[in-house]
Amino acid sequence: MTILTAALIQQHCTADRLDNLTRSEGMIRRAAASGASLVILQELHTSTYFCQVESPSLFDLAESIPGPTSTALGALAAELNIVIVASLFERRAPGLYHNTAVVLEKDGTIAGKYRKMHIPDDPGFYEKFYFTPGDLGFTPIQTSVGSLGVLVCWDQWYPEAARLMALAGADLLIYPTAIGWDPEDRADEKERQCDAWFTVQRGHAVANGLPVLAVNRVGLEQAPRGDGAIQFWGGSFVAGPQGEILAQASKDKEEILMVTIDRSRSETVRRIWPFLRDRRIDEYGELVKRFRD
Amino acid sequence: MTILTAALIQQHCTADRLDNLTRSEGMIRRAAASGASLVILQELHTSTYFCQVESPSLFDLAESIPGPTSTALGALAAELNIVIVASLFERRAPGLYHNTAVVLEKDGTIAGKYRKMHIPDDPGFYEKFYFTPGDLGFTPIQTSVGSLGVLVCWDQWYPEAARLMALAGADLLIYPTAIGWDPEDRADEKERQCDAWFTVQRGHAVANGLPVLAVNRVGLEQAPRGDGAIQFWGGSFVAGPQGEILAQASKDKEEILMVTIDRSRSETVRRIWPFLRDRRIDEYGELVKRFRD
Repeated sequence: MTILTAALIQQHCTADRLDNLTRSEGMIRRAAASGASLVILQELHTSTYFCQVESPSLFDLAESIPGPTSTALGALAAELNIVIVASLFERRAPGLYHNTAVVLEKDGTIAGKYRKMHIPDDPGFYEKFYFTPGDLGFTPIQTSVGSLGVLVCWDQWYPEAARLMALAGADLLIYPTAIGWDPEDRADEKERQCDAWFTVQRGHAVANGLPVLAVNRVGLEQAPRGDGAIQFWGGSFVAGPQGEILAQASKDKEEILMVTIDRSRSETVRRIWPFLRDRRIDEYGELVKRFRD
Repeated sequence: MTILTAALIQQHCTADRLDNLTRSEGMIRRAAASGASLVILQELHTSTYFCQVESPSLFDLAESIPGPTSTALGALAAELNIVIVASLFERRAPGLYHNTAVVLEKDGTIAGKYRKMHIPDDPGFYEKFYFTPGDLGFTPIQTSVGSLGVLVCWDQWYPEAARLMALAGADLLIYPTAIGWDPEDRADEKERQCDAWFTVQRGHAVANGLPVLAVNRVGLEQAPRGDGAIQFWGGSFVAGPQGEILAQASKDKEEILMVTIDRSRSETVRRIWPFLRDRRIDEYGELVKRFRD
């Protein structure tokens, strides 16, 4: 079984958790009815992107794993006989929270978790306030549809993360994401940012000979007190192991992006481009330095 | 002086070393006359791409560094008051050869060498027969036009190489290259290969917030005894620190690709996308493993 049918759920979010989950569930059901055996949700899909401001009360949005959402999605995975990749604000202990992807197996159990390792902090993306950097390492999650190299958003800019997943045998690289434009930015800057986002992830596909599946949200979300806004740029996409675009969503609409992936192509591509063979591991030691000064 | 004018010399090559060098020199002179202070030649520009076959007699093409070509190009650099990046088949000792980039300073001296670290070996690209893997590490070369992260061809597929150069303070990533299509391949495969080549290098620009300058040859080169051919795809290009294309050459013509680079943009881009700040160096140790099994 080298053919995998996957679905990426690109949606907008509101302040109403139940509304968000209900729409996610509806799209997951439609994806499964269309033949998807793997369904991937975007980053932090149960809420708006709350990191536009730093507010202690927003930790109320977090939940444990297992917890209400992972249990509900596990039941849905079991009912539909699919694997679901979800992305939750994890409450691990009082004062200890993570940005965590959780993978639900076809039997409804939790196949594994990934806690976002690289945490951004930029104007409008104040994640270092909310999320403790992950401590589960770069470890693919084993499922009935393959070994999933699940990473989250900011991780997507780091070739090291993709490589470590590939070296650990990941069959797919998966990025739930919440990224968008500052509406105040100029059109050419917006274009460069969005294109850079596509390009660097397609680059991971090329460098590792693996498909990449990236799921982003859509919609304009205002920060509280008129303190800016983010126009999430959607554009969820799937690239093949040569970085070729297999499917791509719009920049502004909710949609289910269906894709058929032939996993055997990764081995074919790695045979003509055997990058893993020639890595100079004897000379890579200083990659663990902050800077080589 | 944050503005740098650079020129990439994209040319075809023949079996006649003097012919190749004479055309290189003519284009270097025109580039300098147009204001270039940095001129970059393609990989192994003094000969055809001889690695299409394995033949001991072809080691005769190698020369020492310093040697005839580096001396001639050094004199030209001094005359024109420019920095030149050349790419030579280096004879280091009998039976010990490298694929070496050499950088000539404005005073004609050798600023530094880089010996290609990742050596390919694929049908038509039998480089492991000719080139001992480099032993000078991933070390930028300091010049009057900046710290040059010079890498060579196959290196361009390795995010590790680009990152190590960036961590060592490189201002630019530079890739002399000889890459092309098997004329027997289908059009869609050719398109994917060429696009992957652009994409992975633009990805290095994005991941490291640095300009990338890649110089490739053009022309159809037949292997001896009718044993295949390579259609070199040209397409030399310069990307800015968000991976944006600043200049791009044709796929089939000799040309001088001139570009103006504002080096201050790298710091601007790294301030909005501070990837170096958030690298999880505590978790990158296994990048020095061949595979994590």
